[in-house]
Amino acid sequence: MTAPGSVFGVGLGPGDPELISLKAARLIAAASVVAYFCKAGRTSNARTIAAGLLPAGVAEIAMAYPVTTEIDVADPAYNTALAAFYDACVARLAAETAAGRDVVVLCEGDPFLYGSFMHLYTRLRDRVRVAVVPGIPGMAGCWTAAGTPITWGDDVLTVLPATLDEATLTRRMGDTDALVVMKLGRNLPKVRRALAAAGLVDRAVYVERGTMAGERVVRLADKDDDTAPYFAIVLVPGQGRRP
Amino acid sequence: MTAPGSVFGVGLGPGDPELISLKAARLIAAASVVAYFCKAGRTSNARTIAAGLLPAGVAEIAMAYPVTTEIDVADPAYNTALAAFYDACVARLAAETAAGRDVVVLCEGDPFLYGSFMHLYTRLRDRVRVAVVPGIPGMAGCWTAAGTPITWGDDVLTVLPATLDEATLTRRMGDTDALVVMKLGRNLPKVRRALAAAGLVDRAVYVERGTMAGERVVRLADKDDDTAPYFAIVLVPGQGRRP
Ligand SMILES: C[S@@+](CC[C@H](N)C(=O)[O-])C[C@H]1O[C@@H](n2cnc3c(N)ncnc32)[C@H](O)[C@@H]1O
Ligand SMILES: C[S@@+](CC[C@H](N)C(=O)[O-])C[C@H]1O[C@@H](n2cnc3c(N)ncnc32)[C@H](O)[C@@H]1O
Repeated sequence: MTAPGSVFGVGLGPGDPELISLKAARLIAAASVVAYFCKAGRTSNARTIAAGLLPAGVAEIAMAYPVTTEIDVADPAYNTALAAFYDACVARLAAETAAGRDVVVLCEGDPFLYGSFMHLYTRLRDRVRVAVVPGIPGMAGCWTAAGTPITWGDDVLTVLPATLDEATLTRRMGDTDALVVMKLGRNLPKVRRALAAAGLVDRAVYVERGTMAGERVVRLADKDDDTAPYFAIVLVPGQGRRP
Repeated sequence: MTAPGSVFGVGLGPGDPELISLKAARLIAAASVVAYFCKAGRTSNARTIAAGLLPAGVAEIAMAYPVTTEIDVADPAYNTALAAFYDACVARLAAETAAGRDVVVLCEGDPFLYGSFMHLYTRLRDRVRVAVVPGIPGMAGCWTAAGTPITWGDDVLTVLPATLDEATLTRRMGDTDALVVMKLGRNLPKVRRALAAAGLVDRAVYVERGTMAGERVVRLADKDDDTAPYFAIVLVPGQGRRP
């Protein structure tokens, strides 16, 4: 009987391959099987970040989302499609571990902060050995790229998904010292209106592809258009105690 | 004339030396001068994390806080003492760069998240070249150690310093999906009361020295005493959308 393998959910950090941890780099360099999420027909961002570390001959499992933005997340069909997809991914990974192979799942940023890997983790953890390696979250790469500390002294930090409704965004933006807004993409016009209502536009910084090729940092007030890619964030740095 | 050196503020991650990034490890291993904060007469935690990477013969600048908890932060004497201390640190580092030497400042977690280095950064950035390397925040090490994803779907994440007053803590704990409470130490009894008032005690996880030697993870409800060291955090994981 073969000893079963393990699944490693490995954080890759914000995008610069040098921001991968020593532990993640060691696991990736020794992997015989890696897995990653991607959009159908598109290159996986996670794979791109780790590319320089992948050993020759590594087996790759590309897990392509059945839906991304075609169905609204409020539509029950979205949940059904995604649940079936995650179940299939888990079956695929469990087959590898049953055959005695470890699988390294490549995760952007930190795996446990709004990460897709979490859906595999909760399904896998009672069935196979799963270990997680934390990573530098995308937001930390972004505030570093912007050259601005995010929280001082007693500052409260609020992290908001831009997918929330405008009234909720506005209320929460108006009730925090420091702010990170993730999952921008098509939500940027809404986020901009909410920031304006909360009186924060002048303090807001827009960061696109932080620490990656094509990085762009600009005051939100100076950004003329309302298009944002998937890897985009808005930051409002805190202004707390500074001796 | 000697070309001036640079200051690098380098994030070390939560404590496990293998969670240092490749970039931070490269800078540390090549350093001729490193600097770090510490309490007078105590070993620096940052130095301990990086110890295995320090090159033989590296010069070390230990920056010992003049005060930590002896003076209340609300006392103007606290600000005065710390401001003078940071000014002196900056003069010391600027003397190194003026002599043509780079200085690597070792920072726990991520330098820009409630980090002492931020006080040097704002003072230095108009005088010398300063670069920052992000790190895995302590909180990411803690939720990984606890084996619990922190945010799902549209969850709002709030990060609170335990130094806030009890009423503020209670109000904010009652108005978020996921929660991180930092800077526990002597504030744990207050944090526990605020969590109870917000109805969150049963969901709260206490993590001490996450990813370090002596790591301890326990449900807060199961922690019998009210002592907590400096490296301790309380987490309340979100419960958002899980297809
Ligand atoms: C589904 S969340 C996953 C976050 C990831 N687990 C992490 O720790 O950063 C994806 C969002 O993270 C943000 N993000 C992650 N990395 C980024 C980067 N390098 N630059 C800008 N935004 C980034 C974007 O807002 C993006 O929409
Ligand atoms: C002044 S803040 C600095 C945080 C640091 N810059 C970071 O990114 O984690 C110090 C607080 O971080 C938290 N912390 C940092 N690392 C930790 C760890 N490994 N385990 C538990 N708590 C930690 C504790 O709450 C501690 O009081």
